[in-house]
Amino acid sequence: MMTKSGPDEFAVRLKETGSAVEAMLERLLADAPLAGEIARPPRLVAAMRHGALAGGKRLRPFLTIETAKALGLGGEGPLRAGAAIELVHCYSLVHDDLPAMDDDDLRRGRPTVHKAFDEATAILAGDALLTLAFDAMGEAATHPDGAIRAALCVGLARAAGLGGMAGGQMLDLEAESAAAPLDSDAILRLQAMKTGALLHFSVDAGAIIAAAPPPARVALSRYGHALGAAFQIADDILDAEGDEATLGKRAGKDAGRNKATFVAALGLDGAKAARDRLVAEAEAALNETGLGDKVEILRAAARFVATRAS
Amino acid sequence: MMTKSGPDEFAVRLKETGSAVEAMLERLLADAPLAGEIARPPRLVAAMRHGALAGGKRLRPFLTIETAKALGLGGEGPLRAGAAIELVHCYSLVHDDLPAMDDDDLRRGRPTVHKAFDEATAILAGDALLTLAFDAMGEAATHPDGAIRAALCVGLARAAGLGGMAGGQMLDLEAESAAAPLDSDAILRLQAMKTGALLHFSVDAGAIIAAAPPPARVALSRYGHALGAAFQIADDILDAEGDEATLGKRAGKDAGRNKATFVAALGLDGAKAARDRLVAEAEAALNETGLGDKVEILRAAARFVATRAS
Repeated sequence: MMTKSGPDEFAVRLKETGSAVEAMLERLLADAPLAGEIARPPRLVAAMRHGALAGGKRLRPFLTIETAKALGLGGEGPLRAGAAIELVHCYSLVHDDLPAMDDDDLRRGRPTVHKAFDEATAILAGDALLTLAFDAMGEAATHPDGAIRAALCVGLARAAGLGGMAGGQMLDLEAESAAAPLDSDAILRLQAMKTGALLHFSVDAGAIIAAAPPPARVALSRYGHALGAAFQIADDILDAEGDEATLGKRAGKDAGRNKATFVAALGLDGAKAARDRLVAEAEAALNETGLGDKVEILRAAARFVATRAS
Repeated sequence: MMTKSGPDEFAVRLKETGSAVEAMLERLLADAPLAGEIARPPRLVAAMRHGALAGGKRLRPFLTIETAKALGLGGEGPLRAGAAIELVHCYSLVHDDLPAMDDDDLRRGRPTVHKAFDEATAILAGDALLTLAFDAMGEAATHPDGAIRAALCVGLARAAGLGGMAGGQMLDLEAESAAAPLDSDAILRLQAMKTGALLHFSVDAGAIIAAAPPPARVALSRYGHALGAAFQIADDILDAEGDEATLGKRAGKDAGRNKATFVAALGLDGAKAARDRLVAEAEAALNETGLGDKVEILRAAARFVATRAS
């Protein structure tokens, strides 16, 4: 277990975990059907792979894997759980990019799924990625205890569904067509649902699968909440300041669409101050886990989330 | 336990079960957030309720509930499992109706979700119904044994995902734009995925939750397969013969769109003969369950599926 984690060590670990996640996603998105599946239509598999492979930092599985590792559990279980969460993240991007939603042509510098295929295929690919996540999460290979697997499925559903990510997306669409911009409290809630819930669950999943003792689980949950909020504020700052080449998508698009952002509500300096407070809160929560040096990598993750360039 | 089940008794049981399912769906789609949910946006809840409540025979949950009952298990567990499957069925209808998919304005005589709300809301409502299904299935209230709950989640995902329902939908879209119509074997596989997989799993879920002994489980699985195939052939026959008022949706639309139907492949008489063979196969499978009179209601269900008027 590492005792210190500078930016370089963190980058190495993030890259290593990303490769392991990519390999797991490749396995989950193989051409051959699983037991109980009838056939995997090649066009649908291709669209799902387009939406899920070759791109992304894999931050969510990183959080799951590193949280479990800090609690003493490594191996395939946390990797599967993290990959399941990543599938949910990828499905949400495929659907968010649709013409009826954010209508984006580019994602990570490549055509979005509905541009590379067509709209109907993108809808189905998103649906099937979301569905596959629960297959990967619930399978016996994820954990020998069925109660833990079921808890992971329920936690994932609750973070991703109407009271979490999908609900946050709904509030975001409503905010776009609202007469007045949202205040910062309303934005905080919207973003806690849209982005924060799945990031928070990524940490929580690590705690569930590694059977964290209750005090550590509470502290890790606080960490996950703070990290999720910091992530979204950093994202808004990036959108306001970033350039298209680095982001791999259109920059400044939020300002043009009455999007509910922290920069709009707090100003750029106010958003940066809020972000820094949340990173401090995340680090303080880690100090309460009782896990000592084992959470150094999670500390580095909070700092990375706040200051990343894309 | 009933020992005979004529058409009237069957209709009464179907109606009773339908009411219980409706009440469970109402509970699952309540306004108040569950533990771990942040908030339930009213517009999203309304769209989900529009897509899931007030309509439908609730045949899938009926199969789950009656299969479990034949095996000696009643109560809330099979009702929750059946409602979870119904949520998946409802999500698939909401997404199938979208402009980029089948582009339907009417469903059960009412405006489809994207007509009553808008396209983005309908996409999110479908996503959130699918997600909620795994919440309902995985929750401790469904069964005390976590391994059974996890198996139900995995089975549902596999029936609904890329190797099942979503994959079948993909094949169906490809068939529409194909140069030549599919032959009857290709249609059989397509429909086994698109419609059959979830109907089959509805029976299987009853066997899983009631811990059916292996011989009964195998026989019930055969029953579910035959019933699922008979259902789709009957649906194609209905579309070819039916009228719009009874169906609550446009009739004859399949013929106008190069849809992969059994009537197109086998002719009307051929389709009816295939349907009748499958009902006989379903009934023969029930005789192998070793459950005696307890499966009479499932026998009636197979006959109902084949000869229903809508």
